[in-house]
Amino acid sequence: MDGHNFDQNFIEELRALLGDEKVSTSKAILDDHGRDESYHPAKAPDVVVFPETTDEVAGVVRLCASFKVPIIPYGVGTSLEGHIAALKGGVCLDLGRMNKILRVNADDMDVVVQPGVTRRQLASYIRDTGLFFPVDPGADATLGGMAATRASGTTTVRYGTMRDNVLSMEVVLPDGRVVRTGSRARKSSTGYDLTHLMVGSEGTLGVITELTLKLHGVPEAIASAVCTFETLGGAVRTVISAIQMATPVARIELLDGKTMEAVNRYSKLDYEIGPTLFFEFHGSPDGVRYTSELVKDLAQDNGGRSFQWSTEQEDRDRLWRARHDAYYASRAQCPGTEGYVGDVCVPISRLAEAIEKAQALLDESPYPTFILGHVGDGNFHFLIFIDTNDPKQIEDAQCLSEQIVAMGLELEGTCSGEHGVGLGKISALEREYGDALDMMRAIKRGIDPDNIMNPGKIVRL
Amino acid sequence: MDGHNFDQNFIEELRALLGDEKVSTSKAILDDHGRDESYHPAKAPDVVVFPETTDEVAGVVRLCASFKVPIIPYGVGTSLEGHIAALKGGVCLDLGRMNKILRVNADDMDVVVQPGVTRRQLASYIRDTGLFFPVDPGADATLGGMAATRASGTTTVRYGTMRDNVLSMEVVLPDGRVVRTGSRARKSSTGYDLTHLMVGSEGTLGVITELTLKLHGVPEAIASAVCTFETLGGAVRTVISAIQMATPVARIELLDGKTMEAVNRYSKLDYEIGPTLFFEFHGSPDGVRYTSELVKDLAQDNGGRSFQWSTEQEDRDRLWRARHDAYYASRAQCPGTEGYVGDVCVPISRLAEAIEKAQALLDESPYPTFILGHVGDGNFHFLIFIDTNDPKQIEDAQCLSEQIVAMGLELEGTCSGEHGVGLGKISALEREYGDALDMMRAIKRGIDPDNIMNPGKIVRL
Repeated sequence: MDGHNFDQNFIEELRALLGDEKVSTSKAILDDHGRDESYHPAKAPDVVVFPETTDEVAGVVRLCASFKVPIIPYGVGTSLEGHIAALKGGVCLDLGRMNKILRVNADDMDVVVQPGVTRRQLASYIRDTGLFFPVDPGADATLGGMAATRASGTTTVRYGTMRDNVLSMEVVLPDGRVVRTGSRARKSSTGYDLTHLMVGSEGTLGVITELTLKLHGVPEAIASAVCTFETLGGAVRTVISAIQMATPVARIELLDGKTMEAVNRYSKLDYEIGPTLFFEFHGSPDGVRYTSELVKDLAQDNGGRSFQWSTEQEDRDRLWRARHDAYYASRAQCPGTEGYVGDVCVPISRLAEAIEKAQALLDESPYPTFILGHVGDGNFHFLIFIDTNDPKQIEDAQCLSEQIVAMGLELEGTCSGEHGVGLGKISALEREYGDALDMMRAIKRGIDPDNIMNPGKIVRL
Repeated sequence: MDGHNFDQNFIEELRALLGDEKVSTSKAILDDHGRDESYHPAKAPDVVVFPETTDEVAGVVRLCASFKVPIIPYGVGTSLEGHIAALKGGVCLDLGRMNKILRVNADDMDVVVQPGVTRRQLASYIRDTGLFFPVDPGADATLGGMAATRASGTTTVRYGTMRDNVLSMEVVLPDGRVVRTGSRARKSSTGYDLTHLMVGSEGTLGVITELTLKLHGVPEAIASAVCTFETLGGAVRTVISAIQMATPVARIELLDGKTMEAVNRYSKLDYEIGPTLFFEFHGSPDGVRYTSELVKDLAQDNGGRSFQWSTEQEDRDRLWRARHDAYYASRAQCPGTEGYVGDVCVPISRLAEAIEKAQALLDESPYPTFILGHVGDGNFHFLIFIDTNDPKQIEDAQCLSEQIVAMGLELEGTCSGEHGVGLGKISALEREYGDALDMMRAIKRGIDPDNIMNPGKIVRL
């Protein structure tokens, strides 16, 4: 089935299954569900459904399977690589109403949620348990979407990505059967790792209808710190030493000098201008003091100036607000443009070189650009501010991005640290994996033989 | 190809490819390669080859593919569920000569090794780097074998299993092509997680010919502690509280009273008799002192007696030696028998109940039994000492094991925490996964359509 050659019987059966109220073909709703937060062109689905239970999801999937209609699972649409564009039309499965937190197992430090629960909703719900969920990609994404795209963010250096924090899932397979990918046990050595196969599968293998997530103990004490460096290399050197010494560092973020300027202006702050590290340490009160002083020494040995640390909530909030606002601060410098966001991740020993090479490429372009990153993971983003209505400018940005990706791959890196493949990184994926892509194709064909699950994403068949 | 109907041309081509010295059909060598450390009946391969390079492995695999001959990758044969039995004959691929440590990337805290490198070999090689590889299953297994079986061990509570510590691999696919499952970047959101698919695949999807492993910083200080409890529940309660408080506990092991008695006798020690926890804490000198005192308080609140902690290497060595010898200590109590080792993992909140129920089942049997476990992970083993030459006794042990597995699954657990599926847990896997097993079958069929990779393990087709 291609585009709008839609069998009207299919829509009728959807309505019969879910009731009229959970099935929409209104143009506004279709349009809203075909666009994520990226520059990728929108492509609306033919119909949007709003199931409320796993059974309803399974019913929709069975119906789609029998009519061979594409299915695109949807959270809140905060992805960045065109993940939700309905390239071949079909049904957008909006999971936003499946937003219940089903069970907090405090003793096991896990929580069972429906896929439409958002990150902030969960944080607020478990606030009084002494536990927290650490993965924070910035946007208030749904946990189902975060799992599907293998999201990460600022705390990965300590707590890992979604890969490390999903214990198991309930999944509706492309034929409508409902399965579990694993148990609630903390570890297992039983067969192929279906949980990790689904994490990052971007809706191409099935629909996630329930997640069991790991929680972590809220640390007794938290300290934050900020330090400006003479050189990028000095900043990266400091990070490498801190991690090697097994210090309990929970966040290490890097902003380049231009971004710091933008942040100062936007948030009315007066940070020094230069490559800057933002830190957070988790531990006991003595522990975070000890770590802060240790990292201060490391920073000073590597050309760090004015290392300031604090255990005050207020200082911490200001610092992370500034980090969080970096994108908006950068954009405010470039009125009338939108940011094209790049995403490359390399081994940390190659990070200074990667960023310097990226900077040189970006400096040759006529567009305003900024660099910032999750430096503890070797992951950096580059922002290119362009007029996204101008195809030439989009092409320029894509070309720059491809050059930076190629450079990152040469430095033993990966074409995406956290934004995923969607449709934007399909060629880069081929470049990164070569023949290993045939393993992915074999998996896709085996599990979704009719290619109805989010077709055209990750692998082209 | 079934059993010994071997095409003599095939053997000739193997010899032509590798040279006579790397191809053996000697009975002693065949027999040695058909048996692991478990009770499972041995099944020798038809030929054993000893490749020294990835190219040689790829050549062997291509040859096997064209003759449709089964391939069983082999490390040192320390697996416990019949993983290496050549059920349909074929070629045993002994990777023991691929034992080079190729590259230590200290700044990135990773190491690139060939699959035949053993755990102790790596530990010794990197001793002076300030880094260590944490996964310790007890046996001096090869790292390739540990990855293939998703091994774990005593340090999982802090450092994770092989799942968490393999960054990427080089793999020879069943058609002989050589691929990489990922890059050296610390995280990636690029497509299906091939690395995690291969970890735990038990040689059924391809041959691991190189591994990039995560290393960790050697902690500044290490403390160990031991504490005997009035009740099993009190011990488990202590563990749950310690983990919830985000204390940096690196090992927590449980031995039951009977095992403690055996250990005392075997190692000439005088531990109190009762459910006993062995701890290890990693951190700064102040940090491990702080944690030790904190856990001491938690233990005392939960009926723990005589909590002793120490930062002395000597005390630590004695304690972990006792833990490590628990199997031999138990066996020494039961001369003329071998241990049938069971392996179940449940959410930690269900662990006390699971162990008590297992104990009740074991107590009904006529055989000597012991229980010990990686209590921080909810993983416990039971030892049943039987005459493994007596089919009736093996059947009794299997029956007991099945009952305990069924009980563990009811408590939201998994049928194997760390020993894997091999051929011993195939029925349990079906019980655990239901329809999700079809995902595993689809993966297996897609990647190894001729079923030449370790056939008859994990899934039956």
